[in-house]
Amino acid sequence: MFANDFYSPQQQGPYEHFALGDFELERGGVIPNCQLAFATAGTLNAAKDNAILFPHMFSGTSKHMQMYVGQGLALDPERYFVIFPNMLGNGVSSSPHNSPAPIAMADFPSVMIGDDVRAQERLVRERFGITQLELVLGWSMGAQQAYEWAVRFPQKVKRAAPIGGTAQGTPHNYLMVQNAMDLIRSDPAFEGGRYTTPHAVGAGLRLLAHFFAQIGLSKEFYAKEDWREIGFQSLDQFLRDFWEAWFAPMDANALLCLLNKWQHADVARHAGGDLKEALARITAVVWNMPFEQDMMFTVDECHAEHVLTPRGAFRPIPTRWGHFGMLGVANADKAFIDQTLRELLAVQV
Amino acid sequence: MFANDFYSPQQQGPYEHFALGDFELERGGVIPNCQLAFATAGTLNAAKDNAILFPHMFSGTSKHMQMYVGQGLALDPERYFVIFPNMLGNGVSSSPHNSPAPIAMADFPSVMIGDDVRAQERLVRERFGITQLELVLGWSMGAQQAYEWAVRFPQKVKRAAPIGGTAQGTPHNYLMVQNAMDLIRSDPAFEGGRYTTPHAVGAGLRLLAHFFAQIGLSKEFYAKEDWREIGFQSLDQFLRDFWEAWFAPMDANALLCLLNKWQHADVARHAGGDLKEALARITAVVWNMPFEQDMMFTVDECHAEHVLTPRGAFRPIPTRWGHFGMLGVANADKAFIDQTLRELLAVQV
Repeated sequence: MFANDFYSPQQQGPYEHFALGDFELERGGVIPNCQLAFATAGTLNAAKDNAILFPHMFSGTSKHMQMYVGQGLALDPERYFVIFPNMLGNGVSSSPHNSPAPIAMADFPSVMIGDDVRAQERLVRERFGITQLELVLGWSMGAQQAYEWAVRFPQKVKRAAPIGGTAQGTPHNYLMVQNAMDLIRSDPAFEGGRYTTPHAVGAGLRLLAHFFAQIGLSKEFYAKEDWREIGFQSLDQFLRDFWEAWFAPMDANALLCLLNKWQHADVARHAGGDLKEALARITAVVWNMPFEQDMMFTVDECHAEHVLTPRGAFRPIPTRWGHFGMLGVANADKAFIDQTLRELLAVQV
Repeated sequence: MFANDFYSPQQQGPYEHFALGDFELERGGVIPNCQLAFATAGTLNAAKDNAILFPHMFSGTSKHMQMYVGQGLALDPERYFVIFPNMLGNGVSSSPHNSPAPIAMADFPSVMIGDDVRAQERLVRERFGITQLELVLGWSMGAQQAYEWAVRFPQKVKRAAPIGGTAQGTPHNYLMVQNAMDLIRSDPAFEGGRYTTPHAVGAGLRLLAHFFAQIGLSKEFYAKEDWREIGFQSLDQFLRDFWEAWFAPMDANALLCLLNKWQHADVARHAGGDLKEALARITAVVWNMPFEQDMMFTVDECHAEHVLTPRGAFRPIPTRWGHFGMLGVANADKAFIDQTLRELLAVQV
């Protein structure tokens, strides 16, 4: 155990904890006294029918998606109560670096998307008494969680918006995530996950940053030098001050915990491996929102799941930011996503 | 200096040497007593008008493209004289591991595609007395060399077939290649390029192998488990026995020499940075042959250069092998490429 200031409320904004007790995991193992950290915006109404759940993406926390909530936006806190759960193992909730033995650091157990969704369901029900969510939405690993919710708890989800993510990882996605994990582990300072200072694995996280620079944006983004539009003077500066700076403060074991979860996400396990049957269980209205030119979860890969979803619409997001169109750095992307969510929330269910 | 059996004639097939003398390089520096290794197939006719030049790709040698030459194929040795040059620094020609001080190993100078093409032009002219080539073709870095030939020596090239490659690297391609280089260098055993045994950099080359597994084939290749069709039982086996086995015997400094060359390939430097003007100098008939679903040199990226090429045709290769469709593992890919080359060679120039 050690402190990593990056995961503190000072850096991630205020968050609360929901105590899950000794939380048993899908693949075996237990997180004793498991803490699910979360943030909220808005107020739950008396009928408890204005709740939205917004899980985060890889390398994210409860802070990162809060930009989509605001007065006048689709997710208006004057109308909706939005819950931002931190994933288990993300560095804020119970995680490798903040857990004592016997689950500290490299001994942290393998956590699956299903574990997060079970934990979130308890938060929603036990803490808030919510029985049905108006919307579950998320980007990338957040989309994996949204699908897991819609398949696992169909009666609790009225609408779902998986954004740039799939219900079942493809073999290529598996390989890609494996490579990301290997980059972290390739750093000798990783020491099998038993490093003793928060930022020991700098070289590994630098490789990871460049990996995401390569596949997280579109080729056209670089061809058009779109980084200039957000204030960078050179590609080198963009790599350093945007990508390297993004990952540098994070915990290597937390990132590995999330990558392992990402790699194994698959709603088909609820139906004996049959993706079609699993997606057919969804009763929510699902708006599938891939990013154009996304190299990580392509439009085609997302569309293949859309056609298996009973009450779906397919709404690709036009952006040169590719998979990272959700970061909201480009105003047009954020506006498009906001408008699409507004339309989805207007759909009568 | 040390021996690496992988680059021996026993493993690469017979090759000869052409002595370039002290060869001055485009970016400065000299390779003393520079040796250009090459192989040939067929017989140069008396008129010396049946010559084809077929440079190789990254991680390749004069051996790898010989599968496209054979009786009854487009490149029939009974009709054509085909020259397979080894790139400078590829491990067979003068290279980091086989050069003495002061250019041994990490001290080997930076070699550009233009250096290879100048060396090849001397080979073709001085050794064989050839003044014009019927065809220059190549895959990936071979395409870079084909473009360099067509722009630099327009009167010496009647036809060119750049296959899965571009005349000017895109910014995204630059970034991708940089990441590949960083993987090799991340291995502590690389020791800044001063390792002392041939296969010291095993961990780095393993990361490189998985990098190419991720971007060298198509997503659909993995989704359809096409590796089964070539005899592999599992994805793990394919990664190990195909990709890792491909790179494991190679020299890390040789691969870095080639990657650096790949990263900086750009015919526009012949026209003050103006790609359009550089490509307009080409008088050859150019058949631009990208691979469908190629993630390294996309169909769109190749098409952008096709429209700037005066006498061109655009012939995408339909394959799920993506960039590695040229390896000829799938018979249909090899047959398509062979047929396209047959048609190109039938074009009257």
